Amino acid sequence: MIQRLQQALGYTFSRPELLLQALTHRSSGAANNERLEFLGDSVLNCAVARALYDAFPDLPEGSLSRLRANLVRQETLADIATALKIGDNLRMGEGELKSGGFRRPSILADALESLFGAIFLEAGFDAAQRVVRGLFDPLVAQIDPRASGKDAKTQLQELLQSRRLPLPTYQLVSTEGEAHDQSFTVECVLAKPALVTRGTGKSRRAAEQDAAHQACGVLQK
Amino acid sequence: MIQRLQQALGYTFSRPELLLQALTHRSSGAANNERLEFLGDSVLNCAVARALYDAFPDLPEGSLSRLRANLVRQETLADIATALKIGDNLRMGEGELKSGGFRRPSILADALESLFGAIFLEAGFDAAQRVVRGLFDPLVAQIDPRASGKDAKTQLQELLQSRRLPLPTYQLVSTEGEAHDQSFTVECVLAKPALVTRGTGKSRRAAEQDAAHQACGVLQK
Repeated sequence: MIQRLQQALGYTFSRPELLLQALTHRSSGAANNERLEFLGDSVLNCAVARALYDAFPDLPEGSLSRLRANLVRQETLADIATALKIGDNLRMGEGELKSGGFRRPSILADALESLFGAIFLEAGFDAAQRVVRGLFDPLVAQIDPRASGKDAKTQLQELLQSRRLPLPTYQLVSTEGEAHDQSFTVECVLAKPALVTRGTGKSRRAAEQDAAHQACGVLQK
Repeated sequence: MIQRLQQALGYTFSRPELLLQALTHRSSGAANNERLEFLGDSVLNCAVARALYDAFPDLPEGSLSRLRANLVRQETLADIATALKIGDNLRMGEGELKSGGFRRPSILADALESLFGAIFLEAGFDAAQRVVRGLFDPLVAQIDPRASGKDAKTQLQELLQSRRLPLPTYQLVSTEGEAHDQSFTVECVLAKPALVTRGTGKSRRAAEQDAAHQACGVLQK
C-alpha cells in the first residue's frame, strides 16, 4: 500500500523511515509527524503561492492570498489525502484507530502536509514543489479568477460598490419540508439595476448565497 | 547604491527590472512589489521553518511555530531591512516620500520580503533560501530554545507531553530568611525518566521555574 501511495504522489522516498514518520500520528507514541507537518505546511504555502503567482499574472496580492487560503484549507487537504488513500497507511494509537481517526479530516490533512515536509527534508524544495504542483495544479486550473475565493454575497456587494450602486436586500420567500430536511427560497433584490433573483438551499444562508450567485451572473454578463 | 544592496544580500540579480520592482512601493504608481511580497512572505516562512527545524531537533512543533513568528515579525524584518539600507533604494510616490515612508517599518519589511520573492522567481527556491539563511542564521544562532517565549514550567510540560511521559510535580523543600527577603527551594520531581532537580528563588513560583529550567536542561541534552 505504501508503494501505491508513492506512485500516487509521483515520488519515491529514499529514506523510508521518513515516509513512515510522516504517516505517524502523535497518538501512536513513536516518532510522529508533528514537526514534519510544521515544515510541510510552509512548503505547501510556498509552492501554492508560486503556482497562483504564475497562473494569475493580473490578480492583486489580496486575491492571491484568498485563493491560496481556499486551496490549502483543511477540507481541501483532506479530500486530496482521501483520494491518495493516505488513511490506509496511517499509523496511530489504538484509541484513535477505534474512533475512526484514519478518516478524520484534521489527521488526514496533517499527514499530507507531513509528506510534503518529508520530501522537502530529504530531496529539497524543488522535489517537494513538484509533488505539490502535481496535486494542486488541477485545482488551480479550475479556478475562476473572478470568483477569487469569495462567497457570492461578498462578491455581489463588492461588484455593486465598485459600480457605486445600492446594496442588495435578501427576502425569505418560503420554507418547505420537515424540520430536519428543510428547503429555503430567498430572493435577492437589487434596486439598480432593478433585478430580482431567486435562490434555494438547505439553509437560509445557503439560499441567499445561491440568489447572490445568480445576481452576480446577470451583472457580469 | 543598488550594487551595495546586492552585495549585502550576497546575491546579484540577473533581471534588474525585477530588483527594481521589489523596491517599488505601490504609492509610486509603477509596477509595484505587492505580488512579489506575497511570494516572498511564503519563501521566508519556509526557509526559516527549515532553519529552525534543523537547528532545534528536540523542539515540538508549537515551539518552532512560536520561534518562527518571532523571527518573521515586522519589527525583525524592518531591522534587517534597515541594516541593509533598503530605505535608500526604495521607490515611492511623492506623498509617501515626504512623510518619511522610506523609514516606515511596514514598507521596509514588505520590500525585504519582496526581494526574497524576486529571487525565488528568477533563480528558484534554493537561491532565495541561501539569501534568507544568510540574514537569519545569525538570529537563529542567538536563540535560547529554552527561552522560546515560554516559561520553563510550560516548556517542561510540553517536552514531557511530546514524549508521552508523566507530568512533573513540584515540592517545596525549604523556606529561609525573613518575611521580606525569603528564599524558597523547590524540587521538580519527574517519575519517568526518574529525575529530581532543585531550584531556588525569591518566591515559590520563581523556585519552581528554576527547578523546571534545570529539568529541561537535563532532558534536552
